[in-house]
Amino acid sequence: MRWRSVSEANCSVARTLSVIGERWTMLILREAFLGRRRFDDFQRNTGIARNILAARLRALVGNDILERAEGEDEHSRVEYRLTKKGIDLYPVMVAMLRWGDTWLCGDKGPPLTLVHRGCGAKATPAFVCPSCGENVSARDMLAVPRRASHPARRPERGSRKHGAR
Amino acid sequence: MRWRSVSEANCSVARTLSVIGERWTMLILREAFLGRRRFDDFQRNTGIARNILAARLRALVGNDILERAEGEDEHSRVEYRLTKKGIDLYPVMVAMLRWGDTWLCGDKGPPLTLVHRGCGAKATPAFVCPSCGENVSARDMLAVPRRASHPARRPERGSRKHGAR
Repeated sequence: MRWRSVSEANCSVARTLSVIGERWTMLILREAFLGRRRFDDFQRNTGIARNILAARLRALVGNDILERAEGEDEHSRVEYRLTKKGIDLYPVMVAMLRWGDTWLCGDKGPPLTLVHRGCGAKATPAFVCPSCGENVSARDMLAVPRRASHPARRPERGSRKHGAR
Repeated sequence: MRWRSVSEANCSVARTLSVIGERWTMLILREAFLGRRRFDDFQRNTGIARNILAARLRALVGNDILERAEGEDEHSRVEYRLTKKGIDLYPVMVAMLRWGDTWLCGDKGPPLTLVHRGCGAKATPAFVCPSCGENVSARDMLAVPRRASHPARRPERGSRKHGAR
């Protein structure tokens, strides 16, 4: 399969990757979540080459993840703001942050702390079952195809069907 | 900045992307989370070219996300199994799944349903504040640099410092 066909796969992970799986895209979105809105700020904080940044911003606007707007200050520079669809990528961002904090930080510890505005707790969001509230990991969840007419995966001989490991 | 320098950035998102941000890597991990363990199964279900798949698997083993093992059946073929570090990427995977389900599914609806083994609920895991239990989105959270001596980002003129949008 070619990468450009990934968006046509009957899988939400594949479709998501077709939109945010390009190199640099999540780093641009990291900046957007940190409140950056301008080309030069994105460029300075990510170090992405300007032509690549321009292309990625165009793609993000085209995919309705960022929207282009005139700036509010006296210079009226163009701003890129997260749309509702873009803001909804926050769990992907936080899940990456959590994993990096846990596995890739070395001795220095995590560079950022998250604070919940609502209760003031310093805490990275947890991943729970919305029904019973328990923390869940891969082993606690089962993935089943929604409809037999659209099987997500072909079953295979000799492998457990939908469990982790 | 060159892509290979991303892993050296003082940011857990950047470091995470340096490990899982390569094209195809998350699709290989999707297969691993669905219980696939063998080269041929990864290849058939993702459609990745064999040389690229081999390189990605080597990188995943090198990064301690998958481990290589002799298979258990009579053919003793090599298997790739998720390590603890790999299993811990599940929230990233599910966050991508959720977003694709919400924004990229069209009329057909999500191809997979997740079921919590513990309580039997059909539900995609939610992100909540581990302290008060409330559902959180980008606007509910604040990101603050852990230590002044290691600022995560330089402050900028004219932009709100650490909020979404």
